[in-house]
Amino acid sequence: MTHLVDERRTASPIITLTTDFGQSDAYVASMKGVILGVLPRAQIVDITHEIVPQNIMQALYVLSRASPFFPSHTVHVAVVDPDVGTDRRPIGVFTDSACYIGPDNGIFTHVYDHENVKEVRLLSDPAYHLPVVSNTFHGRDIFAAVAAHVASGVSPHHLGPEVPDPVRMDLPEPKQLADGSISGQILYADHFGNLVSNIPDSWLMNREDWRFKIGGVSISEFHHAYGNVMPGQLVVLTGSSGLIEVAVRNGNAADQLNVLPGDPLKIE
Amino acid sequence: MTHLVDERRTASPIITLTTDFGQSDAYVASMKGVILGVLPRAQIVDITHEIVPQNIMQALYVLSRASPFFPSHTVHVAVVDPDVGTDRRPIGVFTDSACYIGPDNGIFTHVYDHENVKEVRLLSDPAYHLPVVSNTFHGRDIFAAVAAHVASGVSPHHLGPEVPDPVRMDLPEPKQLADGSISGQILYADHFGNLVSNIPDSWLMNREDWRFKIGGVSISEFHHAYGNVMPGQLVVLTGSSGLIEVAVRNGNAADQLNVLPGDPLKIE
Amino acid sequence: MTHLVDERRTASPIITLTTDFGQSDAYVASMKGVILGVLPRAQIVDITHEIVPQNIMQALYVLSRASPFFPSHTVHVAVVDPDVGTDRRPIGVFTDSACYIGPDNGIFTHVYDHENVKEVRLLSDPAYHLPVVSNTFHGRDIFAAVAAHVASGVSPHHLGPEVPDPVRMDLPEPKQLADGSISGQILYADHFGNLVSNIPDSWLMNREDWRFKIGGVSISEFHHAYGNVMPGQLVVLTGSSGLIEVAVRNGNAADQLNVLPGDPLKIE
Repeated sequence: MTHLVDERRTASPIITLTTDFGQSDAYVASMKGVILGVLPRAQIVDITHEIVPQNIMQALYVLSRASPFFPSHTVHVAVVDPDVGTDRRPIGVFTDSACYIGPDNGIFTHVYDHENVKEVRLLSDPAYHLPVVSNTFHGRDIFAAVAAHVASGVSPHHLGPEVPDPVRMDLPEPKQLADGSISGQILYADHFGNLVSNIPDSWLMNREDWRFKIGGVSISEFHHAYGNVMPGQLVVLTGSSGLIEVAVRNGNAADQLNVLPGDPLKIE
Repeated sequence: MTHLVDERRTASPIITLTTDFGQSDAYVASMKGVILGVLPRAQIVDITHEIVPQNIMQALYVLSRASPFFPSHTVHVAVVDPDVGTDRRPIGVFTDSACYIGPDNGIFTHVYDHENVKEVRLLSDPAYHLPVVSNTFHGRDIFAAVAAHVASGVSPHHLGPEVPDPVRMDLPEPKQLADGSISGQILYADHFGNLVSNIPDSWLMNREDWRFKIGGVSISEFHHAYGNVMPGQLVVLTGSSGLIEVAVRNGNAADQLNVLPGDPLKIE
Repeated sequence: MTHLVDERRTASPIITLTTDFGQSDAYVASMKGVILGVLPRAQIVDITHEIVPQNIMQALYVLSRASPFFPSHTVHVAVVDPDVGTDRRPIGVFTDSACYIGPDNGIFTHVYDHENVKEVRLLSDPAYHLPVVSNTFHGRDIFAAVAAHVASGVSPHHLGPEVPDPVRMDLPEPKQLADGSISGQILYADHFGNLVSNIPDSWLMNREDWRFKIGGVSISEFHHAYGNVMPGQLVVLTGSSGLIEVAVRNGNAADQLNVLPGDPLKIE
């Protein structure tokens, strides 16, 4: 696949948006208006605005699933920000391949753990904010404006001083137990009701004799595609992000198993 | 903040869409196809398509909250149009800073009251419509096509004759009473359940000893940020559009207070 | 209406997306990231992501309503793909006016029936896929990538061999009965609850003395606009795609009549 990176740098800087704002109000569009005021040629891409209100961890997971598929130099704005207007810091995280703009509340923990972070900056210089900054909507007044300036080529050191200690969240990690079994948990159910766990498929070491225990049932069907089982049947497979996933063919596993994010998945 | 207006004029004219069409049908995409057929380089921005069907006033409020954040020369299309196909007029409203395209049913009343209107035009010249105009979807056949032509540089006087008497809606206005108290009402609940009133925060004159009466409760907590009260607690603050807003930190004030749009907010 | 096709070809190739992915996960954005990695100047337009999971026929109808309003050379990606990862084929359908990319499961049956198809290609050359192709998300790994390459100008014959026998769906067709009456069915209810049938309005031959029988009621009100009947009243009219439609002015006909897709509409 050819990446026409040079053209993109000059022609169409990409800015993505991940928020809990929903799509019925003026919030998201106001952010886009601000971005286009600074950078008319921006390619703005919605990751999602359907994060459950105040659910920082869900935003972290969704953004971490999408971001690897964007060209380098993409600017990702993430705003799940219950502490807007308090002393929580607005930050920009610069890595080898991308930039992340949002509140310093742990929403970028996955970036700290999996990307090569070059610097984290406090977004303190008002030259890159809207002229008037509200106490309730930094997504529009700070983050959208800064993102557009960064995508326009403003260097990180202009934005504000370095932040040596950005806030981290505790993310649930899977464990390999002494008896060879694996203990993980469900991170979230997707739109289809597929249950995405935190266990990478590499942990299965290509063996196919595992048993998967979740929601009171035991599943031995590990397959490569939904279509390899009958409609309505439970199946375990490798999801599109390389994580073990529990699904029902043409059905909704979350509803059928009554499993919620945080519930355990055990593999024996 | 630098506005690169010259680049935008030539490179990326912005057209926004506000409708009650939802996102599950072909309606919104059909409008976008028509726009891109006329103006391939258009930057199309969705304000929202989640207006409650036929709720003209909600469309008016959402558009009025978003439009100030768009660059000048943006073309805003608003289609909540229960009388499509009757003799209601299709109009274009041209102000100092923007253009508004839609049905003449009062949806642009906020524009007439708050912007410097230069002219209102009847969209009667079929040269700027689709070749075939249906009776049920002027959003696609007239408004999208005209918006793209306007964004391409077509002058207002080409579209049709002036409309001297565009339709206005009665909008609820807050009142200052003789005893110094303020009587307003809730305009809408946003995605978070925050209750947005029609009372500008300037009416509070920086005094902090007000009591806010709404939904049978009395609130004295006026703060600058949601995070200044405990989770689950009611708080009154200035929303991101400068209007007084009633919220619950990390909660849903509309559900908790059982308050609907149109219900009173009194400030004493 | 002027179509500035030459400018579009060079400046802004259009790629549309129709899926059952919803808008709360990373799936849609991942596809957009892949597209922009190949073709930074793409104009990506969402048709809808709210197709009912696995409902291929709904995707077919929605796409067929929107596609006629896009400029020629638009690339339409449609992904309702319950058999992803099995031996169902990934295909590209090239017509006089557009290109359609997706699974070979009948989702393009309307294209075969109504457009001049030049060739159908198997998407087998991995040079136009992502480097790693998952078993569960060809929308991202194959279809988005191929679509961007096609929009960039890659010729169909590079993608893979011709497919002589693409899969077709049985679509319900209306019938003219011996007694002069018409027997059709409801294809879907739109966002407003308007019931869209499969009967073209040309079959009414401009006569106005028809009776419409649906959901146990008989309607003789055939009008040109919703606004021609009283609020709350049932009305039959020609929808914006030229099909007979049953609606309630300012109301929801699907709810009021308790009619589902597949239910009959008879015209006498």
